[in-house]
Amino acid sequence: MYLTQGLQRALQQSPGHVATVFRGRRRSFAEFGERVARLAGALRGLPLAPGDRVGVLAQNADRWLEAMMAVWWAGGVLNPVNIRWSVPEIVYSLDDCDTRILFVDDQHLHLVDGIRAKALHAPIFIHLGDGPAPEGLLSCDGLIEATAPVEDAGRGGADLACIMYTGGTTGFPKGVMQTHLNLWASSLQRMAPAQPLTGSRVLHAAPLFHAGAMARALMQFIAGETHVVIPAFDALEVLQTIEREAVTETLLVPSMIQMLVDHPAFAEHDLRSLKCLIYGASPMTAPVLERMLAALPGVDFFHSYGLTEACPSVSSNPPENHGAQGRANGRFRSAGRAGIGVSVKIVDGDGHEVPRGTVGEVVVRGANVMVGYWNKPAETAQALREGWLHTGDGATMDEDGYLFIVDRIKDMIVSGGENVYSAEVESVVARHPAVLSCAVIGVPHERWGEAVHAVVVLKSDAQADVEGIRAFCREHIAGYKCPKTVEFRDALPLSAAGKVLKRDLRAPHWVGTARAVN
Amino acid sequence: MYLTQGLQRALQQSPGHVATVFRGRRRSFAEFGERVARLAGALRGLPLAPGDRVGVLAQNADRWLEAMMAVWWAGGVLNPVNIRWSVPEIVYSLDDCDTRILFVDDQHLHLVDGIRAKALHAPIFIHLGDGPAPEGLLSCDGLIEATAPVEDAGRGGADLACIMYTGGTTGFPKGVMQTHLNLWASSLQRMAPAQPLTGSRVLHAAPLFHAGAMARALMQFIAGETHVVIPAFDALEVLQTIEREAVTETLLVPSMIQMLVDHPAFAEHDLRSLKCLIYGASPMTAPVLERMLAALPGVDFFHSYGLTEACPSVSSNPPENHGAQGRANGRFRSAGRAGIGVSVKIVDGDGHEVPRGTVGEVVVRGANVMVGYWNKPAETAQALREGWLHTGDGATMDEDGYLFIVDRIKDMIVSGGENVYSAEVESVVARHPAVLSCAVIGVPHERWGEAVHAVVVLKSDAQADVEGIRAFCREHIAGYKCPKTVEFRDALPLSAAGKVLKRDLRAPHWVGTARAVN
Repeated sequence: MYLTQGLQRALQQSPGHVATVFRGRRRSFAEFGERVARLAGALRGLPLAPGDRVGVLAQNADRWLEAMMAVWWAGGVLNPVNIRWSVPEIVYSLDDCDTRILFVDDQHLHLVDGIRAKALHAPIFIHLGDGPAPEGLLSCDGLIEATAPVEDAGRGGADLACIMYTGGTTGFPKGVMQTHLNLWASSLQRMAPAQPLTGSRVLHAAPLFHAGAMARALMQFIAGETHVVIPAFDALEVLQTIEREAVTETLLVPSMIQMLVDHPAFAEHDLRSLKCLIYGASPMTAPVLERMLAALPGVDFFHSYGLTEACPSVSSNPPENHGAQGRANGRFRSAGRAGIGVSVKIVDGDGHEVPRGTVGEVVVRGANVMVGYWNKPAETAQALREGWLHTGDGATMDEDGYLFIVDRIKDMIVSGGENVYSAEVESVVARHPAVLSCAVIGVPHERWGEAVHAVVVLKSDAQADVEGIRAFCREHIAGYKCPKTVEFRDALPLSAAGKVLKRDLRAPHWVGTARAVN
Repeated sequence: MYLTQGLQRALQQSPGHVATVFRGRRRSFAEFGERVARLAGALRGLPLAPGDRVGVLAQNADRWLEAMMAVWWAGGVLNPVNIRWSVPEIVYSLDDCDTRILFVDDQHLHLVDGIRAKALHAPIFIHLGDGPAPEGLLSCDGLIEATAPVEDAGRGGADLACIMYTGGTTGFPKGVMQTHLNLWASSLQRMAPAQPLTGSRVLHAAPLFHAGAMARALMQFIAGETHVVIPAFDALEVLQTIEREAVTETLLVPSMIQMLVDHPAFAEHDLRSLKCLIYGASPMTAPVLERMLAALPGVDFFHSYGLTEACPSVSSNPPENHGAQGRANGRFRSAGRAGIGVSVKIVDGDGHEVPRGTVGEVVVRGANVMVGYWNKPAETAQALREGWLHTGDGATMDEDGYLFIVDRIKDMIVSGGENVYSAEVESVVARHPAVLSCAVIGVPHERWGEAVHAVVVLKSDAQADVEGIRAFCREHIAGYKCPKTVEFRDALPLSAAGKVLKRDLRAPHWVGTARAVN
């Protein structure tokens, strides 16, 4: 099982089939494969040894998919960098897994100098864009033109394919080590029960550096079907692209769906080609679901639940639970049932399965579960206990095996589909010279599902205002992690053991909602 | 990836769903799983250590599937015995891989004494049938009643799951070692591009000890859907069972399809539930295809090409090539294109890929390829060269990647879907006291595709007739391997190097057919 296999199969069986569409540009599998084999040759010449890490810091593009495949074809390991990170976060991930080659697109060129200055080993930068490469970067197209195609490196199975960074409860991101087998298994496990992908044209609107979007791209490569790519989610461009390219399927987070359905130009577009809409990363609310179903009557809706550590698929809630019956019996709120090949249990603190209907932690086992966190043996041992991945998500399971996520046991906020670890934000806020202590929690937000909220206690002789705290955070962490709101208190509520009682902080914000606030 | 996972998932999600139907008997997944977990406990008590082999010598039944799952649940390795074998062949396979426990059904009780007398280590026999166990056998139902359910042994991945015996060119069968990962990968690779199995009811009419039928059963377990089982292919029972159980899919070899379509009661049965018919093991002729399409207008036909060593799936020819266009352009005769995750090439004698349209040997790579032949390092090294399984099948590939099998490079006859290795039959014929030398070839046969034909040279002072040769063979090998026809000659045609020129022997039989006779 190796991730270039689907591309090789497409080159053998359907070289003329459209591989990628990016705005006006279309490339066949023959063209795409030729570019990948040449770019892989160039990477090896830099040099890149088997298992070396290569980063991609770019918006979605056909070139993103070329770079991804070229890294694997060359024998490397992909580090898909979150484009919303600040320079210190990017540098942390590059240094942590020793990424020496980095693809950067035009939108992120302004970060190059900062990365070069701060990284332990400044990477070789490759310009992933049209036109001549700026000074100090290699030209991707130049490398492709100047290099002969090479044979696939033949890595697969238990070889590392990807290191994806996910926020860490200790305040540092963790590199999730995903093997070829992990990602291949996760893909096939989702493909097997779904409609066949033959003839599908998937729109990549969610960022490809996310586990969910990348997994969908891998499925499309395994099937040898067409990728339609836009740089980033933009409601109007999504509508236009679905119509123009007869897109059959896309994957969005609920806040994107809401923006799409609410867009004033929604009704002007012919979206009848769309057959399937997968959503995930945060729960769907009943009003958005209702409007979505009314607006897109011919579309099958799947709720996909997963996490980077499961590479990423765990469970799926099928279209039939989104109809009138599913809305009446509440099953539309379910994260679905364990997918093919995935074992899921709800366990108590001792790892014993709890009775159906009882809240416990979701644990997962399967060929799709990561091999561990890069260079984090203690956190790996904590996450992978007795053969099961401990997700930190609290849930119940009903008699038919449907999962209902009720809370995150680990302290994490999901805002607009992005995971924000409270500990990471707290460690930044606490570094502000005026701050004595702080606690960061998620509070309900109409558009983003949850918003990051900081409760701050100032030093007795110090002063700071909301904007000062927010500006300080923006220098150190990505914008989506920065507190949207800040509240000043004289003290934090503490337990007898001196632990901050986050439940007490959250409770007033969540009054009248279904979410538990433990 | 472990083969009991699908059963565990069904127990969690749909315990009341029908697992097996055998004539009048239906068992839910809850009942089936309970029996499996108890039988597994009994096997461990015999004792069975992890990795120990357990044989099944039985016609198809719901009990066959229970025994299979119980072996894996207990941590054992399945040896699915070919029920058409003679006692020496069965004993060879039991001794070869040290099978110490053997399930036997009522139809094969008459072989027990012979096996007990001849095996190096007489196995423990378990009666796989209704009613009290005969003397000297344990009762399967008795073991189930008397034993508490046990936990799954948790074997999977690279652990051995199955040893399937296939005829050997050296005259001895070879035990193909199939891991959990091999069989799981082969299943998912076929499930991913097909229609979802949700709601399917598959009829197991072809023998479950064959790689193709067993693979289809595994897919059904992975999906958690219903198995309908009949003891053996019988055209009338197939027709009645499809109608009574609303069967949606079955897998047959072409000679079975012909018997089905030709059956006088065909038109009296309502077969409208049937959506999919998979055929394989031998080529479909144009007249049978025409009749099959006319008789079953609503059915999707898939031609599946594979071999035990590929566990077993290699390629599949989809329904669209069975329509008017596929019949006009000849693509209905194709073995299809490489399945998802399977790499296929046509190579010359040096292992180099040949140009499209040129005949060469089919080689296969993928997670579904066996790890080797049990205790046969030389033959394993010969079959698995440079990471590729050498199938021994000669074929061409067209520009779209479609395979056309033209001949077997290894000397094998396919008669009614069974593989017969010439070398094995020749070694038996040659042991007849009157025989000086012999050559065994396949000749065209209307019903079986090919029939086994022996060309015999007698010793100068000896005498033998056709019936004498056939009777001698029947004592030593399965009936389907015995020559249907025997021809006496004064000498065999030999090459300059002294090798029998089988091409010259075959040529007159195959005049006017499309088959190459190299």
